[in-house]
Amino acid sequence: MAAKKRSKGLVIPQGVVSRLPIYYRHLLDLRSQSVERISSAQFGEAVGCTAAQIRSDLSHFGSFGQQGYGYKVSDLLRQLEKILGLTRTYSAVLVGAGNLGKALASYDSFREQGFVINAIFDVDPVLIGNYHSGKVIRPFKDLPAYLKKSKCDMAIVATPKEAAQEVVDVLVEGGVDSIWNFAPIHPVVPRGVLVENIQLTDSLLRLAFYMNARDN
Amino acid sequence: MAAKKRSKGLVIPQGVVSRLPIYYRHLLDLRSQSVERISSAQFGEAVGCTAAQIRSDLSHFGSFGQQGYGYKVSDLLRQLEKILGLTRTYSAVLVGAGNLGKALASYDSFREQGFVINAIFDVDPVLIGNYHSGKVIRPFKDLPAYLKKSKCDMAIVATPKEAAQEVVDVLVEGGVDSIWNFAPIHPVVPRGVLVENIQLTDSLLRLAFYMNARDN
Repeated sequence: MAAKKRSKGLVIPQGVVSRLPIYYRHLLDLRSQSVERISSAQFGEAVGCTAAQIRSDLSHFGSFGQQGYGYKVSDLLRQLEKILGLTRTYSAVLVGAGNLGKALASYDSFREQGFVINAIFDVDPVLIGNYHSGKVIRPFKDLPAYLKKSKCDMAIVATPKEAAQEVVDVLVEGGVDSIWNFAPIHPVVPRGVLVENIQLTDSLLRLAFYMNARDN
Repeated sequence: MAAKKRSKGLVIPQGVVSRLPIYYRHLLDLRSQSVERISSAQFGEAVGCTAAQIRSDLSHFGSFGQQGYGYKVSDLLRQLEKILGLTRTYSAVLVGAGNLGKALASYDSFREQGFVINAIFDVDPVLIGNYHSGKVIRPFKDLPAYLKKSKCDMAIVATPKEAAQEVVDVLVEGGVDSIWNFAPIHPVVPRGVLVENIQLTDSLLRLAFYMNARDN
């Protein structure tokens, strides 16, 4: 059950990285139901892929599970927490305190995974000075000064489309190298800066595609 | 440029369906910049895949573009609108009028793609009766009666995790067969009901994985 020394994340196929969170969430559910052990076959069925796929995905990180026994839930969960970097906390800033930003700031799952929003910024004078989730909403123009003196592991961008690239530029300029972006653009960033884009529109369009294909 | 008679959406590989919205958004950007024509190579570069991939993806739906010319932006956009089912409007209900629900209700892109929220439901007495985006927030217990008398092409579920399966059950019972789900569960639905899950946590965990892999 020893984890291999991890190679750089970028060499792990994207498909594998996409499935790890699904495995992790299922293991959390199992633990909350006091399930101690799961076979590859059951695991596969629960998450919608084959047992072989799961074994192959996990093999990138080491050797887990045991022939004829399956996986011990608590062990695999602990290994996945290491692989996913959930054994530490991350300090975050949120830019954009509209409805979406507010929803994210009060998103429990975010805190549960160790992400802590330490500051919230917006340009709207109506919002600035208000409190949300225990944090005062600060003027966006103060962001560079904030980043100079405060540790910031990642930023959440929840601004309108038009503002997003400028916000990302200010964040990167201030040394932020990991961005969770909710604005409907793919921001341009220097090499080495990570961006995870949530594309709500793409998800909606996938649904529309399937609705249309089913109904025609 | 004739589109093939569309085969059922479910036989189109998921990867293709995932890329169509990306192509569509890029074409919208090009149109807004008054670009009339794009080569496969340029198109590929802009959306981060090969020209061959784009040609292969589109070949599922017919024959588009021309050797040596590339794609005419307006033509391909019109074809993608048909493929994605964006030539019609969809009537929607929203269940859950917390911050996330409110953000979705005022999400411009949603309306731009032809999705119209006709009713909003919540269980919270503090919210019920308030107006958001021009719609009154109705009591969740009125949802079955609403679905009996009103056309509803799809529902958006933006409730807490604990409530989501019950909400989905009520929607399906009321005849809703397409669900855009933001709650962090994979709801169980009868065969034939479409669910598109937005998993914010999975996206966050992917970012955490890459941050951790880069920094170790």
